[in-house]
Amino acid sequence: MFAVLKQDVSQEQLDHLSMWLRSRGVEPHVFHGVYQTVVGLVGDTSNIDIDLLRGLDIIDSVTRISEPFKSANRKFHPDDTVVKLGDRAIGGGNFEIIAGPCSVESEQQIVDIAKAVKASGAGLLRGGAFKPRTSPYDFQGLRAEGLEFLLEAKQVTGMPIVTEIMSASHLELFEDVDVIQVGARNMQNFELLKELGHCNKAILLKRGLANTMKELLMSAEYIMSGGNENIILCERGIRTYETYTRNTLDLSAVPMLHELTHLPVVVDPSHATGLSRLVLPMAMAAAACGADGLMIEVHNDPKHALCDGAQSLTPEQFDEVARKVAKVREVL
Amino acid sequence: MFAVLKQDVSQEQLDHLSMWLRSRGVEPHVFHGVYQTVVGLVGDTSNIDIDLLRGLDIIDSVTRISEPFKSANRKFHPDDTVVKLGDRAIGGGNFEIIAGPCSVESEQQIVDIAKAVKASGAGLLRGGAFKPRTSPYDFQGLRAEGLEFLLEAKQVTGMPIVTEIMSASHLELFEDVDVIQVGARNMQNFELLKELGHCNKAILLKRGLANTMKELLMSAEYIMSGGNENIILCERGIRTYETYTRNTLDLSAVPMLHELTHLPVVVDPSHATGLSRLVLPMAMAAAACGADGLMIEVHNDPKHALCDGAQSLTPEQFDEVARKVAKVREVL
Amino acid sequence: MFAVLKQDVSQEQLDHLSMWLRSRGVEPHVFHGVYQTVVGLVGDTSNIDIDLLRGLDIIDSVTRISEPFKSANRKFHPDDTVVKLGDRAIGGGNFEIIAGPCSVESEQQIVDIAKAVKASGAGLLRGGAFKPRTSPYDFQGLRAEGLEFLLEAKQVTGMPIVTEIMSASHLELFEDVDVIQVGARNMQNFELLKELGHCNKAILLKRGLANTMKELLMSAEYIMSGGNENIILCERGIRTYETYTRNTLDLSAVPMLHELTHLPVVVDPSHATGLSRLVLPMAMAAAACGADGLMIEVHNDPKHALCDGAQSLTPEQFDEVARKVAKVREVL
Amino acid sequence: MFAVLKQDVSQEQLDHLSMWLRSRGVEPHVFHGVYQTVVGLVGDTSNIDIDLLRGLDIIDSVTRISEPFKSANRKFHPDDTVVKLGDRAIGGGNFEIIAGPCSVESEQQIVDIAKAVKASGAGLLRGGAFKPRTSPYDFQGLRAEGLEFLLEAKQVTGMPIVTEIMSASHLELFEDVDVIQVGARNMQNFELLKELGHCNKAILLKRGLANTMKELLMSAEYIMSGGNENIILCERGIRTYETYTRNTLDLSAVPMLHELTHLPVVVDPSHATGLSRLVLPMAMAAAACGADGLMIEVHNDPKHALCDGAQSLTPEQFDEVARKVAKVREVL
Repeated sequence: MFAVLKQDVSQEQLDHLSMWLRSRGVEPHVFHGVYQTVVGLVGDTSNIDIDLLRGLDIIDSVTRISEPFKSANRKFHPDDTVVKLGDRAIGGGNFEIIAGPCSVESEQQIVDIAKAVKASGAGLLRGGAFKPRTSPYDFQGLRAEGLEFLLEAKQVTGMPIVTEIMSASHLELFEDVDVIQVGARNMQNFELLKELGHCNKAILLKRGLANTMKELLMSAEYIMSGGNENIILCERGIRTYETYTRNTLDLSAVPMLHELTHLPVVVDPSHATGLSRLVLPMAMAAAACGADGLMIEVHNDPKHALCDGAQSLTPEQFDEVARKVAKVREVL
Repeated sequence: MFAVLKQDVSQEQLDHLSMWLRSRGVEPHVFHGVYQTVVGLVGDTSNIDIDLLRGLDIIDSVTRISEPFKSANRKFHPDDTVVKLGDRAIGGGNFEIIAGPCSVESEQQIVDIAKAVKASGAGLLRGGAFKPRTSPYDFQGLRAEGLEFLLEAKQVTGMPIVTEIMSASHLELFEDVDVIQVGARNMQNFELLKELGHCNKAILLKRGLANTMKELLMSAEYIMSGGNENIILCERGIRTYETYTRNTLDLSAVPMLHELTHLPVVVDPSHATGLSRLVLPMAMAAAACGADGLMIEVHNDPKHALCDGAQSLTPEQFDEVARKVAKVREVL
Repeated sequence: MFAVLKQDVSQEQLDHLSMWLRSRGVEPHVFHGVYQTVVGLVGDTSNIDIDLLRGLDIIDSVTRISEPFKSANRKFHPDDTVVKLGDRAIGGGNFEIIAGPCSVESEQQIVDIAKAVKASGAGLLRGGAFKPRTSPYDFQGLRAEGLEFLLEAKQVTGMPIVTEIMSASHLELFEDVDVIQVGARNMQNFELLKELGHCNKAILLKRGLANTMKELLMSAEYIMSGGNENIILCERGIRTYETYTRNTLDLSAVPMLHELTHLPVVVDPSHATGLSRLVLPMAMAAAACGADGLMIEVHNDPKHALCDGAQSLTPEQFDEVARKVAKVREVL
Repeated sequence: MFAVLKQDVSQEQLDHLSMWLRSRGVEPHVFHGVYQTVVGLVGDTSNIDIDLLRGLDIIDSVTRISEPFKSANRKFHPDDTVVKLGDRAIGGGNFEIIAGPCSVESEQQIVDIAKAVKASGAGLLRGGAFKPRTSPYDFQGLRAEGLEFLLEAKQVTGMPIVTEIMSASHLELFEDVDVIQVGARNMQNFELLKELGHCNKAILLKRGLANTMKELLMSAEYIMSGGNENIILCERGIRTYETYTRNTLDLSAVPMLHELTHLPVVVDPSHATGLSRLVLPMAMAAAACGADGLMIEVHNDPKHALCDGAQSLTPEQFDEVARKVAKVREVL
């Protein structure tokens, strides 16, 4: 870490700063440039709060050199993490498609979709039981009942299941869930992340709407620092000024995260674009740049569910996606 | 709400859509333009999920005309909400400064700061007990003990207190807190918002890092739909590409929110800019454009707490801010 | 186009608005909702200034339904535009890689790179002669001399050349250039766009750093409205809050633009990411989601040009990109 | 400037880098941290291209410590620049309001508005003759004729005039203009900036829609490096994801720019918000945080110009703004 001092800092102020840094286990190396003085901090800077340091009156700017994440950092753990899920795995060359409806609506619905997507090659089943909705007036999911239907579909098809948690107080309901999803809006719900660090389930951690890759990795670090290292990262689009698509899918995050961390990275093109007709091209693009998996919304009953699941693909459309993605994977 | 249809929609598809809309209590009015057909939706469109409608294959775009928030909407509740806090109040012409340290560090610290900021004119005391930190390795606050110290400072000074909650499971600890703060990262922690809707305390709801004003109002709506209407909104800077300041303080949100909602709006210049030297000008600007209050970080012991609270003002600096803000308020 | 009126608009004001709209050739259709009145505008709304309408005191919001671009709009011109360049073509199923150095440095350099990238399958040669630099102290390009070297490389290899223009006053120097590039920073240099509308050369129009797809298409419209319809659009990354990559490559813009317009869309992964090691995965992703071409920086002399061209690939690395991209193309 | 090396860099690569840096007049200071090696660059780093350095394979990240702008930098020129305009001045404690219509429409119109705003206390007259419009189908301004009308208004009222240039080829038409405005979309039209560096007129340089303060200062540097130091910076809103306001007015840029540069900073609340009803509060806020002036749109004939100038204030509304802003100025 480097701190650039303001021009008019006195020796006394510099000494005071140095003393304070040493009290935190960090050795300051002072370095006089042409215009400004720089203090290099050598040692374990992870217990230096960069925002606080930056706010000091004598400080012009602070730059962190080592990434603040450790457990998630590829520098210290060069080998890919492989998250094993029954007879399936994600990461380290293992690629899986997680497919299913936005919301679990009935036992029949989720079992039918599960069978269909399994037949097309999906390895995991997703389905929302607890739904985070911007509006309190929108459907909030079937909640506990939805989880039961999902578990029924797991039993019928043998597919591991992925579903979202919205509060640590619901954790006991997730006992038979294979992968607990942390949604974009809860990526920095730190109390929830801490709890998940103490459970022994795989976590699918979605990047927040306006969170950097570094913050995503720090949130993974929260879970890992509790002892749970089974984390799958998920890029699902970030918020920009563009309005033709719901969010902007940041596919360069896939190879960039692979460089920064050993954790697997999957891509959710359904939520990112909000348009089912963009799912095929973006799924292919995600596979082409090295994603370890995809998360795709599929619904089954377009006639009666005119709207519910409208952003989703039909099972037939999903089948095409799965086939074309497999071909892209062959090229890699 | 208006839905613009794609050009090649058949009469059968249009009839199907109309039937579906009517089944949800909304009457479709079809309108043929030169190039495209538009369907106006008349009735209570709040139970139409706009994202789902937008995702339909036959739909080009959807525009909501009525805002989706009702309880928070000034159109339906023209009078300003006044949040009463002991002998103080925020909103409806009542202006208060909420001041105090970023983190509660000790009983002595919080009591001393409380006395100092009260003497300068602050009406409420703030102090973090539960701290949301990006890194699991950063100080997480004194938690329950911090709340006790804060309550002690309340007793000594008589100031109502404001402090952040991070999980609904901590709610019982907040029994004697006057204003429960929901931080930016929890603005869309909907399970938490629902719980706060059932408590009878004032809520200070901070705008998320990358949330629109509409989303802020929808989160307020979550709380209000549970029965709790004592909400203070807080603008604290949004995430942009600019890096000289930590976030970009969106002051135009103050008059814009005043137009959209009857809820009071306070501004937090300390977190928005991340630079204590920008607090004075931005506090004055916030007062000048009509904010109902300010939330300002103040620390007391710059010698020993070189860093903790470094983004904060000293009590002397805060005194200057309070005096100058009062003068700006006189102009209004 | 729809204008939603404020709640307290009088009949007289509404009549006044209607009269004014008719004077501009647009017929108003008034539509009374439960809470608000909406005016639908039927006719050629392209001469209604939406910003001005939106600013009226009686107007709550305005929504454009028809896209404001016409010549570029696929609705009116369903067939793909194919831009022909010598024996090469871009669009309508034709895919080309445009490769070459960031800056033309010498005749030898550009001729050598041209030969190398041609051998690897690049169809067009790029090279900067006029360089837009954020700092006046950075290298501004060889300018006219750089163009001469580029033309020499064209003669030697037969490759059509692409190079950037920064001012309409330089146009005569571009007489033998095949594709004139408009850089991101000049995407809304409307006086330049107008001039390019009157020349008979292909234009490669880069999306601005913070411009929407709609604005990109409106800038294309500027050129097309002057009579020049040979336009290639280029996605090159947009500005977001993320800092690990220089910009955020918006690959969903590729299928989205293909839906909106008949113009071809190429992708520049080199500038978008700013990191040569991300060029291969992002080039493959761009090809996988249907881009009509790629624009890739290649330099040739890594030993002596330690820095110049450092974000670029070596010819060997480019050869790998070209081969893998060709394989992805086969899958489509 | 600091360059952090990747972990596996060899001594030979480091020597090569050092040699290259020295050849550019910069002395490398190598510094071994716990995990990584850092090279501090001492000397005139303004001729090191940071993007190129960052792109090197052996480099992890690069941080600039000294700002790359020199002439505009307050560190080297601590005294405020005062831009003198007839008997008026902006900067160094001098505050002026620049007022007038969005577009010059007729001699009568501009003369009438000039008289009105002068009576209310405006010091300079603005009016658009050359208009940058997103759509080629929107009104492009009266161009040369508009300039003549503006000069007539100058003669009648004695007010210095401010108007926008869109191409260096129009420069001779601006001979009698007092302040040449560079609009947001041309902030990085470097060829235009270079030309303006050689003219002896004051320049009002607007911040681009998505440009950082640093880039704004680098664009000022382009003009200053040509010899013209009469520059007024203008904050006019930046592009964010928020849609209730047209742009997000970044008022913290006012005190931040005052810290970084000696150039005066004015604020344009009309364009930033796009809503005339937000101009009063935001003008007051801008004055309260220390702006050196305001730029405000005023139109005069609301009956006949129903739309043109609709985002503008009437002369009566402007008079209120001018009076209230003056009161805020008294507090400072």
